[in-house]
Amino acid sequence: MTIRLIGYSFSGIVMRVIICLKELCIPYELDPPASYKSLKDEDYIANKHPFGKIPVLFDGDFKITESRAICRYLASKYQGKHNDTILIPNNIHKARLVDQFISYELSYYDPPLSKLIYQEKVIKSLNRDQDPEVIKQAHEELAKVLDVFEKLLEGKEYLNGEYSLADLFLCPSTYYVYDAGHSDLWDNRPNVKKWWNRLYNRDAVKKSFEDTKSFWESNPKF
Amino acid sequence: MTIRLIGYSFSGIVMRVIICLKELCIPYELDPPASYKSLKDEDYIANKHPFGKIPVLFDGDFKITESRAICRYLASKYQGKHNDTILIPNNIHKARLVDQFISYELSYYDPPLSKLIYQEKVIKSLNRDQDPEVIKQAHEELAKVLDVFEKLLEGKEYLNGEYSLADLFLCPSTYYVYDAGHSDLWDNRPNVKKWWNRLYNRDAVKKSFEDTKSFWESNPKF
Ligand SMILES: N[C@@H](CCC(=O)N[C@@H](CS)C(=O)NCC(=O)O)C(=O)O
Ligand SMILES: N[C@@H](CCC(=O)N[C@@H](CS)C(=O)NCC(=O)O)C(=O)O
Repeated sequence: MTIRLIGYSFSGIVMRVIICLKELCIPYELDPPASYKSLKDEDYIANKHPFGKIPVLFDGDFKITESRAICRYLASKYQGKHNDTILIPNNIHKARLVDQFISYELSYYDPPLSKLIYQEKVIKSLNRDQDPEVIKQAHEELAKVLDVFEKLLEGKEYLNGEYSLADLFLCPSTYYVYDAGHSDLWDNRPNVKKWWNRLYNRDAVKKSFEDTKSFWESNPKF
Repeated sequence: MTIRLIGYSFSGIVMRVIICLKELCIPYELDPPASYKSLKDEDYIANKHPFGKIPVLFDGDFKITESRAICRYLASKYQGKHNDTILIPNNIHKARLVDQFISYELSYYDPPLSKLIYQEKVIKSLNRDQDPEVIKQAHEELAKVLDVFEKLLEGKEYLNGEYSLADLFLCPSTYYVYDAGHSDLWDNRPNVKKWWNRLYNRDAVKKSFEDTKSFWESNPKF
């Protein structure tokens, strides 16, 4: 039974799951909803996602929502099956430190990035005016977080030493903001710069970014 | 080696870990930092939490930070050892649905609650003026989330059917907001009301709330 992923490939939150599927070499089909508006239809709310969101994943009869939970599911069920990429280590101490780094991503890294994505991508696409003060503050907030990451990454290839969900989770949002004129934040910090290059050049990550790029090139007005 | 938890028992985020420790009957000692200010000391940042936060847990030589990651660690390592409370089911499908509900808590339930806690507790304790518009909007946002929870809880005792980390995680914030004049949000929805009563009356949860209450009674100015 092929895995079915409901969502758009260009949504950073959906891309998180797509990178995970590619990392683990899991075959899947992408099933894009008719429109963003349709996510609030009674049928979608009742049968797909109770809060009217993407992504949603079906694996046979099993349904699961929320990008990070979906990735945890894919890793728990499929890692080691199609290749030897490990996203959640088997060792309890290592695995729970992955959770710690996921919480750093969620609690400290993601909030300023989300503000920047809103300003640089969403507002721009709506032809509305950006708020330079919000951009400045979010840039400064992110700079402080990356100062901490610079120390955390000292002598390590990835946040938890080895590659894991913690690095994977922050790829899409980083890609969008890096590309929107904030690359200095990563490039000015040697460990962070090397880490981001390492992530960016992973096959699964690169391929997902390329797919998104070609989507935007062929649908500039989406 | 006794588990050492760095934090204050009245902090909702620390209380999450305390409830977890009590649920699993794990002996621990609480080690409160000298002050909130001390969390930003060089030594604290270097050896305890790189972002200068509580809680931090030490289990022998193993250190882990971030409340939800700490609870996942405690469940992975200790559930089934001292009693038969299960917080993360062994079955992969059930366990990953716990992650899904944790993501609902983090993404939809927690944000309006955090705004209400800030307005009703933090601002009040600083003797500053509350913003009635923020309170009204957060109340309405939470009402919509609880409408969804009302449906999710239909025919179920807990979010994932059986009690799990997903319910545990939202106890402290719910307790603070329920108690601050917003109880109607839970009480007006039959399934939500029964669920919250069930949670509130669990020994581990009740005991943690009682400890917090006596702390506030003996330290009204903290
Ligand atoms: N916490 C959720 C967030 C889901 C989310 O916000 N998805 C966006 C993707 S663009 C969405 O569905 N937006 C449409 C809407 O909110 O109406 C996750 O990690 O999956
Ligand atoms: N995502 C963290 C949040 C930690 C957090 O914000 N802790 C508060 C507890 S009151 C704190 O340390 N605040 C002090 C500060 O931010 O300076 C977790 O879940 O542990």
